[in-house]
Amino acid sequence: MNKYRIAVIPGDGIGKEVVPEGLKVLNAIAAKFNIELSYNHFDWSCETYKKTGRMMPEDGLEQLRENDAIFLGAVGFPGVPDHLSLWGLLIPIRREFEQYINLRPVRLLPGITSPLRDKVPGDIDFWVVRENCEGEYSQIGGMIHQGTEHEAVVQESIFTRYGTDRAIRYAFELAKTTDKNHVTSATKSNGLFHSMPFWDKRFATIASEYPDSETDQYHIDILAAQFVMNPERFDVVVASNLFGDILSDLGPGVTGTIAVAPSANINPERKHPSMFEPVHGSAPDIAGLGIANPIGQIWSAAMMLEHLGEKAAGAAIMQAIEAVLTATDAPLTPDLGGRASTCDLGDAIAAQV
Amino acid sequence: MNKYRIAVIPGDGIGKEVVPEGLKVLNAIAAKFNIELSYNHFDWSCETYKKTGRMMPEDGLEQLRENDAIFLGAVGFPGVPDHLSLWGLLIPIRREFEQYINLRPVRLLPGITSPLRDKVPGDIDFWVVRENCEGEYSQIGGMIHQGTEHEAVVQESIFTRYGTDRAIRYAFELAKTTDKNHVTSATKSNGLFHSMPFWDKRFATIASEYPDSETDQYHIDILAAQFVMNPERFDVVVASNLFGDILSDLGPGVTGTIAVAPSANINPERKHPSMFEPVHGSAPDIAGLGIANPIGQIWSAAMMLEHLGEKAAGAAIMQAIEAVLTATDAPLTPDLGGRASTCDLGDAIAAQV
Ligand SMILES: CC(C)[C@H](C(=O)O)[C@@H](O)C(=O)O
Ligand SMILES: CC(C)[C@H](C(=O)O)[C@@H](O)C(=O)O
Repeated sequence: MNKYRIAVIPGDGIGKEVVPEGLKVLNAIAAKFNIELSYNHFDWSCETYKKTGRMMPEDGLEQLRENDAIFLGAVGFPGVPDHLSLWGLLIPIRREFEQYINLRPVRLLPGITSPLRDKVPGDIDFWVVRENCEGEYSQIGGMIHQGTEHEAVVQESIFTRYGTDRAIRYAFELAKTTDKNHVTSATKSNGLFHSMPFWDKRFATIASEYPDSETDQYHIDILAAQFVMNPERFDVVVASNLFGDILSDLGPGVTGTIAVAPSANINPERKHPSMFEPVHGSAPDIAGLGIANPIGQIWSAAMMLEHLGEKAAGAAIMQAIEAVLTATDAPLTPDLGGRASTCDLGDAIAAQV
Repeated sequence: MNKYRIAVIPGDGIGKEVVPEGLKVLNAIAAKFNIELSYNHFDWSCETYKKTGRMMPEDGLEQLRENDAIFLGAVGFPGVPDHLSLWGLLIPIRREFEQYINLRPVRLLPGITSPLRDKVPGDIDFWVVRENCEGEYSQIGGMIHQGTEHEAVVQESIFTRYGTDRAIRYAFELAKTTDKNHVTSATKSNGLFHSMPFWDKRFATIASEYPDSETDQYHIDILAAQFVMNPERFDVVVASNLFGDILSDLGPGVTGTIAVAPSANINPERKHPSMFEPVHGSAPDIAGLGIANPIGQIWSAAMMLEHLGEKAAGAAIMQAIEAVLTATDAPLTPDLGGRASTCDLGDAIAAQV
């Protein structure tokens, strides 16, 4: 029996509501596929911050390190400035564990209606590969003349060949496994004078290592528009940290709802634990109501199992999600047009498993 | 008779094809509204760069300065790296003439089909106010260990209180003129540690000067998704240079086509000439075919007249565009599903005027 230790961090807001549903489905799957999952629970959150001034204990990263994977809900809540909560928990985990790929499927699921005219499942099905450890997200910078009318802030983006190449290379490797073997690069070399011309150069260099792959590139502005106008066009889209962030919310928007979208923060070398979390955030506006859609969290569980090598178990979760979404009497949450609770929908998917 | 001197820069690619249509319509309008327009033509482009190593002559900005407005097509073409062409022409004009607002309407026009289900004209109608002179677009930064595996690039974003406040304030003033009086701020304060928390603070400060305006703010990732899921929600969206760039291509994507979208690079104090250009670029893929849609350029002409104080003339252009788009036998360009040429569509709009 394969055994895995999973660090569980529900975090804030609806994270605390959807993570239990993810665990419910994981337990059902584990029983069926003869997998042993042991959970280490961590209540780190903005509550912790308010009590202790930290999002996690000083040795928090060490406590996570001994796990095989991290299963996270959502981080951030009104009352703690976002940059403090995120840089105190989510971003340090991504960086310490070299989770330099943020992999996000953009897929129109059966049973869900795209806001785009005429699109049906199968039309929209691609990957966003986001660089997840450097780039525009940086604490480097600061302010001068603070509090005066001459105030100015410097925010630095740092791109290294090391960090850029490994993200782009991952995208090409992923494309090799798809039907289209096509990689699109997101750039903005006409506006961002230093970073994006560099990104383009590295993309061209790495592309030359993959002569069988087709490539193209778009400036981020028109690329965003293309996600709406021609989403069929894409297979693997590779982007910097910020651009990948934008595209991987926009993509799920185009497929009907952010609430079902999963993400995998991956350390491809498996030297460190990878982390799995829904794309959505803590959603303060509906937190506590018990109506959050748990599918993003449950799909993230499927990605986690796949990453751990349990492909069949991961696929079984996806089948269960799709079966429930297309059932005539599915207990859907309000965002999907139903009246069911988070727990009802989680129950249905677990039962389907 | 009111007289205006207009600097005309067709630039590259389809810029050279759509600008003449813009002038055609301007001439028709001028005759009708008793306005005198005199044009100063500048052939600055990537061709110029290839011949002279510069996008415009050394005194180019001085040559433009004496005009009342600048009417630009598109800049950038394969063969000249984008960052060189844009930083050699478009961006210096924006900055030298303190065109610190890039104003872009997002409006679903009658006769155009949105890619979004069920959306009809009237449903999507808002403004993107983009900060246009600082922020993420900067030449500040550079590379270390160039050409080695340790290569690293630093790209700096600079936000000043001066530059941020005037953009945000413009958005609130604009909102006062709309029915909803609502301003949405685009942020990413959870990822961009210095710049966006600063932006948020300035937004909150300026919002407090406008107690009658409603406000909200979204992180750029979810905001992009909301443009697709709930475009009715917006009235005035204010964003940094990069975020505004992305949103003002995504918006037109949501309204059916980038090709018809206009933009105004405005110096609100009218100390310097403002510049009017379509949102689309030089479109190398269709350049030379004579099939580019001239409506973005023509709508930009309408914004120019409005800025110059010729509101009735600007409105007349918009009426002509809408009349042609909804005519049963309209000569539409291929992007709108027709077979007409750039020139045919320009003729039709000029005739309608
Ligand atoms: C060409 C490019 C530099 C420009 C920009 O990003 O500002 C364009 O995309 C625009 O939006 O006007
Ligand atoms: C919460 C935030 C810092 C985070 C990010 O931008 O990385 C989130 O939007 C995501 O995409 O995982």
